Amino acid sequence: MKWLNKDVLYTVIFGTETPAGRRFDLALILAILLSMVVLLLDSIGSIRAQYGPVLYWLEWAFTLLFTLEFVLRVYCAQSRLGYLRSFYGIIDLLAVLPTYLAILMPGASFLLMVRLLRVLRVFRVLKLLRYVDEANLLLRSLNQSRRKILVFFSTLFILVTLFGSLLYVVEGPENGFTSIPTSIYWAIVTITTVGFGDITPQTWLGRGIAAVTMLMGYAIIAVPTGIITAELGREMRKEYSRRHCPQCDRSGHERDAKFCNHCGGELEPQNISEA
Amino acid sequence: MKWLNKDVLYTVIFGTETPAGRRFDLALILAILLSMVVLLLDSIGSIRAQYGPVLYWLEWAFTLLFTLEFVLRVYCAQSRLGYLRSFYGIIDLLAVLPTYLAILMPGASFLLMVRLLRVLRVFRVLKLLRYVDEANLLLRSLNQSRRKILVFFSTLFILVTLFGSLLYVVEGPENGFTSIPTSIYWAIVTITTVGFGDITPQTWLGRGIAAVTMLMGYAIIAVPTGIITAELGREMRKEYSRRHCPQCDRSGHERDAKFCNHCGGELEPQNISEA
Amino acid sequence: MKWLNKDVLYTVIFGTETPAGRRFDLALILAILLSMVVLLLDSIGSIRAQYGPVLYWLEWAFTLLFTLEFVLRVYCAQSRLGYLRSFYGIIDLLAVLPTYLAILMPGASFLLMVRLLRVLRVFRVLKLLRYVDEANLLLRSLNQSRRKILVFFSTLFILVTLFGSLLYVVEGPENGFTSIPTSIYWAIVTITTVGFGDITPQTWLGRGIAAVTMLMGYAIIAVPTGIITAELGREMRKEYSRRHCPQCDRSGHERDAKFCNHCGGELEPQNISEA
Amino acid sequence: MKWLNKDVLYTVIFGTETPAGRRFDLALILAILLSMVVLLLDSIGSIRAQYGPVLYWLEWAFTLLFTLEFVLRVYCAQSRLGYLRSFYGIIDLLAVLPTYLAILMPGASFLLMVRLLRVLRVFRVLKLLRYVDEANLLLRSLNQSRRKILVFFSTLFILVTLFGSLLYVVEGPENGFTSIPTSIYWAIVTITTVGFGDITPQTWLGRGIAAVTMLMGYAIIAVPTGIITAELGREMRKEYSRRHCPQCDRSGHERDAKFCNHCGGELEPQNISEA
Repeated sequence: MKWLNKDVLYTVIFGTETPAGRRFDLALILAILLSMVVLLLDSIGSIRAQYGPVLYWLEWAFTLLFTLEFVLRVYCAQSRLGYLRSFYGIIDLLAVLPTYLAILMPGASFLLMVRLLRVLRVFRVLKLLRYVDEANLLLRSLNQSRRKILVFFSTLFILVTLFGSLLYVVEGPENGFTSIPTSIYWAIVTITTVGFGDITPQTWLGRGIAAVTMLMGYAIIAVPTGIITAELGREMRKEYSRRHCPQCDRSGHERDAKFCNHCGGELEPQNISEA
Repeated sequence: MKWLNKDVLYTVIFGTETPAGRRFDLALILAILLSMVVLLLDSIGSIRAQYGPVLYWLEWAFTLLFTLEFVLRVYCAQSRLGYLRSFYGIIDLLAVLPTYLAILMPGASFLLMVRLLRVLRVFRVLKLLRYVDEANLLLRSLNQSRRKILVFFSTLFILVTLFGSLLYVVEGPENGFTSIPTSIYWAIVTITTVGFGDITPQTWLGRGIAAVTMLMGYAIIAVPTGIITAELGREMRKEYSRRHCPQCDRSGHERDAKFCNHCGGELEPQNISEA
Repeated sequence: MKWLNKDVLYTVIFGTETPAGRRFDLALILAILLSMVVLLLDSIGSIRAQYGPVLYWLEWAFTLLFTLEFVLRVYCAQSRLGYLRSFYGIIDLLAVLPTYLAILMPGASFLLMVRLLRVLRVFRVLKLLRYVDEANLLLRSLNQSRRKILVFFSTLFILVTLFGSLLYVVEGPENGFTSIPTSIYWAIVTITTVGFGDITPQTWLGRGIAAVTMLMGYAIIAVPTGIITAELGREMRKEYSRRHCPQCDRSGHERDAKFCNHCGGELEPQNISEA
Repeated sequence: MKWLNKDVLYTVIFGTETPAGRRFDLALILAILLSMVVLLLDSIGSIRAQYGPVLYWLEWAFTLLFTLEFVLRVYCAQSRLGYLRSFYGIIDLLAVLPTYLAILMPGASFLLMVRLLRVLRVFRVLKLLRYVDEANLLLRSLNQSRRKILVFFSTLFILVTLFGSLLYVVEGPENGFTSIPTSIYWAIVTITTVGFGDITPQTWLGRGIAAVTMLMGYAIIAVPTGIITAELGREMRKEYSRRHCPQCDRSGHERDAKFCNHCGGELEPQNISEA
């Protein structure tokens, strides 16, 4: 059969250039979203009580469909190991496994929500390359500042451990600080300014230390913000200086400029996506 | 009758240049604010119990007044379809509809709070153009970074879905995570550092995942901040380089400068609103 | 008596140049802090039960002392009206009034905590001019961006009114949203990411709108941050370009530089406080 | 015995250059982490009930080990007083004291969590100098802006005191605001946007003042962020202008540049850690 030919299959399943390839990908994204709606409905008690069996069979239908798709992808991939090790290869596998797992441990099927990550293909299909480009700029900034952010999180980790232990000693189990891990959890809830309020200090000393924790969390949020802002500003200035005037060869034009501000020569439209 | 003349009506109702036009607009804004006070009072149980009928008739009086005004606006508008499709046209209609709707479904009348948006006319009336200009600068910055912000919100959406599903599987309905939508709601409450505390994880694993969610929310707030800051800084530098010295034609003067720092020539006052 | 001489009194009470003037101010600040400790202790039930009368008489003693001081200040001020209208004149009066007011309405005496503002004199006394200077830089930045911040707060005000009204209609009094003002209060608690959790939405629609409110509050915090950062950066660059080399007259030296980086000439120490 | 020789001991205990020295440090860090796991487990009620005695003796074993290590450090340090006064000297002492203290007051042993700070040695051992360098850049930025941050925290301190007192007067003990210190604690919880929800205002006036407190806390978070961002940007620009081309001696190269953008000469790799 022609449609079992590896190359044809590859063009349809992996490719996004042919109409058939784009139609396949759009149908796939639709199927993924539908399977997630089934999962959402299945988790709501009153709906499961009424439509449980239907949802159960729909879930199995989607899983079998995605398993077949996964098998075909492995079959027609140009490099099988390459595909299995890639981001999408792992996600595609994770998107079917939990249903089989749920035979052994019920509840695991809701891990199928990881299917959401498969929807990221939509960017490739709809040629939303500009968005991918902006995402890359953000990722590059985060990557450039990874060491500073790691130093920041190490400091945060030390702070919550010390403040958590201190409150365990001061407040003790009778005020809800039942153990050091619980107290560290409380310290994280407090320093990130989330503040659930399920555990709160009751003694004067405990409240004083809690106040210091809060003020610290309130102030040091400035540090990651400062890091990202400085790094993003630099990345954006770099991108901005990359535009060259084809006539006088000067760079540094505004992102939305249409003419060179030195010689008046027309600038090429900014093809970020091709850079 | 002279006052039914379309042009005269237009000058009074839409215009803000003549004394009559300005008086009309100020009276209108006063009426809007009064009608909102009536709504606020009507929503407080103890006051409604005592003054219910009065407030009811006042609400109808304001609605009839605004309906009459809306009809007159449509009648005298230079382009009727243009007005009906404009921001203010839609708001003016929405500002009277809920009272009529409330005949069918009680409670809908409180949607009249949308009248607040009509008060935005105050900027045009009081010639607060500088404020409009500052608002435009903010909007332009937000617009320039719309793609980065969309990428950020997509990431956030994926994160809350995955973390929400994970906590539903780990904690389950017995700890308040009654369904995946509820768990996603909890994840949004947590990642935005709001932390109501009506649903909180109770197991060790759940608290660990919750801690990761919080730290993530605490750290990635830096990303939109960095984006807006970098974009605002660029927009402000652009505005700042727009001032020219009429004598030596150099630009780049401080916003509050009065004399050119190259030739000493007097600078024109910065007419932001006319730019 | 010599010490009732207006000029001598002025030098002691208002001045900080003479040893007597500094000693007077330091004693005053000590007295203010002591009077606030009395207030703090008086507000703690168990302590008031035991030492109530002592604290009561101490409060009156401090009030009479500060009243006497205020009368002397008015008496010896170079411009009486000028002093009474100044920031410190108003604070000095407010710092004694509540005790007298408390005769009529008990509880008012705790408004005496406003005495804290009198402690701000400590900056003038201890010549902490560098701190005043940094405070001025912050205030100048805030002042420069006051219009942007006002636009931001107006938007915030409109958003909380609309979201609050919407939740009142959707959730209603049975879920804690007892009136529109209460709902607006809830919207402020939510959009600022405080999240007390005393009022929380219970319906699907209400939780959906609440999620939008939170995400909005989480994202738009970026706007004031961006404004202040951009403005602060500009103010700091200005301050930094103000240093001139006395030899080659070039500016733009680092704040901590000691020698000119163009000609090597020694720079004057940066006298920010005298600028 | 050779291993009691001061110099040999110094090389092993303090040094990180020899294989023996590195092995000693890694073993030490492992021992510290293990002793902290013991502490964590000891604080969990159910585990202590079962393994209490084992954990008790393990804690004493680790304490005796660390005491021996501390005595050896003092014995072989090049400058004993210098070591005892240094950051690590103090931490090393604090890391053993609480166990002895716990004989007098039970519970104090959990203060041993301060041992975590000893783990910071890991940076020196693993030659993670780049991380130390990034940490220094952050610390330098914080140090440069210390005065601005102090001014900010003073303002915050005044605000929470005034708002706390105001809410104590308005709400009073019957709504949970039992004393002024409690009210100030509430104000800190609110202005930092933590919002535990254990104490909440119930009156209209109280909620109004609370709303102002929240909006203030929501907005002024922008100030420390702005300060740190501006300072970090400056520090990063300084670091960036420190790279010189060995051929044409020009500076200002991008951090990740490999060739001079003026003459094309190869740049030295950036030895941040040696700077």
